[in-house]
Parts: sequence; structure tokens; C-alpha cells
Amino acid sequence: MTDNGAATFLDLAIRLADTAAPIAQRYFRTPLEIEAKSDASPVTIADKEIETALRAVLKEAVPDHGILGEEHGAENLDAAYVWVIDPIDGTRSFSIGKPLFGTLIGLVHNGVPVLGVIDNPAIHERWIGIKGKPTTFNGQPVATRTCPDIAQAWMTSTTPHMFLGDNVKAFENLKGQVRHTIYGCDCNAYGYLANGYLDLVCEAELKPYDYIALVPVIEGAGGIITDWQGGALGLDSDGRTIAAGDAKAHGAALKALTG
Amino acid sequence: MTDNGAATFLDLAIRLADTAAPIAQRYFRTPLEIEAKSDASPVTIADKEIETALRAVLKEAVPDHGILGEEHGAENLDAAYVWVIDPIDGTRSFSIGKPLFGTLIGLVHNGVPVLGVIDNPAIHERWIGIKGKPTTFNGQPVATRTCPDIAQAWMTSTTPHMFLGDNVKAFENLKGQVRHTIYGCDCNAYGYLANGYLDLVCEAELKPYDYIALVPVIEGAGGIITDWQGGALGLDSDGRTIAAGDAKAHGAALKALTG
Repeated sequence: MTDNGAATFLDLAIRLADTAAPIAQRYFRTPLEIEAKSDASPVTIADKEIETALRAVLKEAVPDHGILGEEHGAENLDAAYVWVIDPIDGTRSFSIGKPLFGTLIGLVHNGVPVLGVIDNPAIHERWIGIKGKPTTFNGQPVATRTCPDIAQAWMTSTTPHMFLGDNVKAFENLKGQVRHTIYGCDCNAYGYLANGYLDLVCEAELKPYDYIALVPVIEGAGGIITDWQGGALGLDSDGRTIAAGDAKAHGAALKALTG
Repeated sequence: MTDNGAATFLDLAIRLADTAAPIAQRYFRTPLEIEAKSDASPVTIADKEIETALRAVLKEAVPDHGILGEEHGAENLDAAYVWVIDPIDGTRSFSIGKPLFGTLIGLVHNGVPVLGVIDNPAIHERWIGIKGKPTTFNGQPVATRTCPDIAQAWMTSTTPHMFLGDNVKAFENLKGQVRHTIYGCDCNAYGYLANGYLDLVCEAELKPYDYIALVPVIEGAGGIITDWQGGALGLDSDGRTIAAGDAKAHGAALKALTG
């Protein structure tokens, strides 16, 4: 079973995305109280309500699976299957009425990301990745584009302020080698990379609920996503990620980040 | 006539936006050759084709009016009415399949911006501002929100890399005083400000075709947009702009930028 059983859970993943979307849509562009969490990142009632709803679906459907969510913590992480959920990736964007946020739903099997959904409920764009199968965008298969020369690469990152300490210089070095760097897509950037619209996405300070869902989406479109040392992403990665549509661009980016 | 005749030309402005939209939609998310202009900013066939189409409409409808466009230069700028056009504001976003770009259509009467359209053809969001009248978003009147305390302000800017030289320190100073700074909305940010979703937009290195259309949109929603000295924006402004939904936040931002 090349997909580690992921296809079995596809319907459940879609049900989760379909559960999250109307909640996000109901709160989007309405006045909301925005709390600051301990790490100063914002959270709204929409984030919390979505995650509560998704956990209820999971507990009813797969009570033996683990859950790791951004807002309500970790449960049963020793299970063979663990769902990794960000109810609203891009809460800052959500909070200013910018329709580039998304719900991220990932599934890890024995530490390997095997299923991922990036769902943008504001503009109805959904990417689904299953280990060993072609990634789809709104139901149609997609593929990354070639980019053998990093000097021609179009790169995105959510914000330059996500790079701290030594990461600042590493990102600056990479930015100096690519053609353009554009900010502010949040998780949608990985979908655009899967669709072949851009070449690199470089980020840092990510948590598993920010990146696990991305892995099957990127890999199923023919791309690569790793940490900055080129290592596979799992629940214990250090939060520095580099995604590329072309292996050559990925190799050059790793060199720029660690060189 | 409090609107300097702007309402007379509303139908024409809408016709321009309706002419631009299908061209942008046709090219969006298709492989395009992206040229670098002399200032290194990118331009595509979509930018050029839209501006050519809009100029043709204007020359037929109002042959005595002036035109200033991003791609094809200036004509008859001494005319009482001058149309100021950016066929695709956010060409970088457009180029990576990110649906946050827009067509900007502005009208200046004797140097005063009197009519502005921000049109996002990718997700069908359109703001229309007419001097002395309420701004509309997809046909509904909108208003900015209050923000008496700059420490509570949500700010956007297209990218921190648009601040050069002394502007870097000024922007950093302002950024240090607000609650959150978010990048990557291009012209849509001014629409979100008009709708009351955010509080400040600070930018630099803008050209008249980047900011003229914004003025009636922001002012008609109850907001303020000026240069960094608090001066009114016209064709000869220096390209540093600060928009706010609340006069108090605007005043505090000016102080932070020039302090």
C-alpha cells in the first residue's frame, strides 16, 4: 500500500474541510475580537470554533487516531495515524479581510505525512494531496513547473519577519539569488507552487500544523519540500521549510540557505 | 458641482473596468513571458493589452481628455480631465497566480482626484469612489472603522522592500508603533481599509497610476490618504503615501513617519 492507507481517509479529510469552510465563511469580514496568544500570534473565535468542530468529527469517525491542532493541543500522538490541523492558517490575513488564508488538514502515518488538504474557503480553492497519487486543485490534477536556474526563480514567503536570528542571513542570501520574492500568500503559496505558478516557498518558525498538510500536496504535484538541511518533514522538524517545484531549484536553494 | 463632474464620467469608468477585466482573466494563471522594465519591475502582455484597450475606449469617448498610463506613457496632461490608469497593479502577484492584483482607474480634474475604481477581476471585487459621494464595494456603500489608538492599528504594505534610503527608518518607526503589519495585498489593501477591515496602509515609491484612483475610494469611505507630510495627493506627489480609516491614526502615523 504505497499511500500508507491515506486514500481510505480521503472522504474523512474532505468532510473535515467541508465542516471548516462554512464556519470560516460565516466569520470572515465580520468584526471579531482578536486575542493575542502567548507567542503574540492572533487567534479568533473562528479558529477555535473550527478546530472544535473538526475534533468532534474526528472523535466520532476515528476515535483511535491522534490529533494535533493549533488551538486545542495534542491528543494520542502515539497512535499510528495522527491528524494535524490548522483551523485557520493566516489568521492575520483572515483578520484584515484578505481572502488568502486557509484550513490545513494533514494526516501522518507512523511519522510520515500521507494526506494533506489546503482549503481556501474565501475563494473556493482546494488542493488535495495523497501519498503516491497526483495532487488535485479543485478536482483537477496539477504539476509543478521546471526551474533549473535559481536566478529565474519566483519565490514567496509569508513575511520576512518570520526569519529570526541566523535565519535572517540565510533567507537574505537565498533572496539575493532568486528573480523575485513576494510576500503574503500564507498557505496558498504552496498551492500555487503545486500548480506551477511559482518556483520556491521558503519559511521558518512553522509548526507541524503549518507544514504537515503541505507535504503530500507538494510531493504529489512533483515538487519537493524539506527542512533547510534537505531532511524529510515530520512532527519533530525544526520549522524551517523550503519547497520547490524543481529538484535543481531545491538543491540550489538548500545551498544558499546553508552555504 | 461638488464632485468636479466626476459622476458624469462614472459610466465611462465602469466601462473601462469592464473592458480590462476579461483581458486580465484570460491571461491570469496562464504561462506568460514576463519582461523586466528599465526599473526592473515586471510587465506582461496582459498589462500592455489592457492599457491599449482602455486607451482606445477613452480616445473614442473623450478625445479631449488626457491619459497617463503605466505602460504607454502620458498624453495631453494639460487637459482639464486626465485619466490615470494602471492596467495591472500587482503584476508580481498576477505573475504567480495570486488573485490579489487589480486594475486602477483614476480621474483627475484640474489636479484633483475626483473618481477612482479599484477592480479585482480575479475574485470580482470592485470599489468605486466619487468625490463627495459614499464609496461602494460591489455596489454597497462602505465606511472605514475608528482607530483612535495607533497601538491597536492593523497596517499593511505591499512589501517592506518598497522602502529605500531614509524611508526604511521611517517605515520601521511606524511599524514599531502599530499592532500588526501584513504584506502582500497590493491595491486591494485600500479597498479593505475602505471597508473597515484594517486601519493603515503605508507605501512608498508609488507612481500616480498607483495612487490617484485610491484617493476618491478612501475619502468617500470616510478615510484619509496623503503624502507623508500630510499633503494632498496629486500628479506630482513624491510617491510616499499613508492612508488611514481614522484621522487620529493618520495623525499619529504622520508623526511616526516624520518624527
